[in-house]
Amino acid sequence: MYISMSRLRLPESHVADLLDAFKHRAGLVEDAEGFIDLEVWHSDRDPEEVVMVSRWETRDAFTQYMKSSDHQTSHNRISRALRLVIKLERLDHLHTYDVVAA
Amino acid sequence: MYISMSRLRLPESHVADLLDAFKHRAGLVEDAEGFIDLEVWHSDRDPEEVVMVSRWETRDAFTQYMKSSDHQTSHNRISRALRLVIKLERLDHLHTYDVVAA
Repeated sequence: MYISMSRLRLPESHVADLLDAFKHRAGLVEDAEGFIDLEVWHSDRDPEEVVMVSRWETRDAFTQYMKSSDHQTSHNRISRALRLVIKLERLDHLHTYDVVAA
Repeated sequence: MYISMSRLRLPESHVADLLDAFKHRAGLVEDAEGFIDLEVWHSDRDPEEVVMVSRWETRDAFTQYMKSSDHQTSHNRISRALRLVIKLERLDHLHTYDVVAA
């Protein structure tokens, strides 16, 4: 499994707008080949920090989606005002190990 | 949902030992009240970086487990040699937002 994790920083007053953008997203990623799920996490310690985690079957599935027009469409729906206040602090790409417990 | 995420740094030559410790773990966390799952991720960019992510129904479930003798037992099984080379770089506690797509 392949993980893309973006650590975002934005003013606390805009966190609700970001969540709103997610809730009203185009919903295109759900149909992408190899997409597993997407979660949005909010730091307990730092109210300006939001982590976006998407899980994919393979690295290829993720890179294909990133190059797709669906991704471009989804990204373009985010308002310019919101984009201006969001800072990508860190981007991680990781593979999962086969030691998952559930 | 509550997330505990530990970012670990260790020499690449010990990563296999760490995975081995996970694979042969006591398996106690699986029975903890409110435990959802545990994944281990390996950075694509930095071979010395391993991220351990556990998901819980609530923050309380996580803190109860951390205080339990089961957690102590599990932690004590990690060899001293391995503990000495693992550095906890960052520990995050986060809540999930209700915008999950799957």
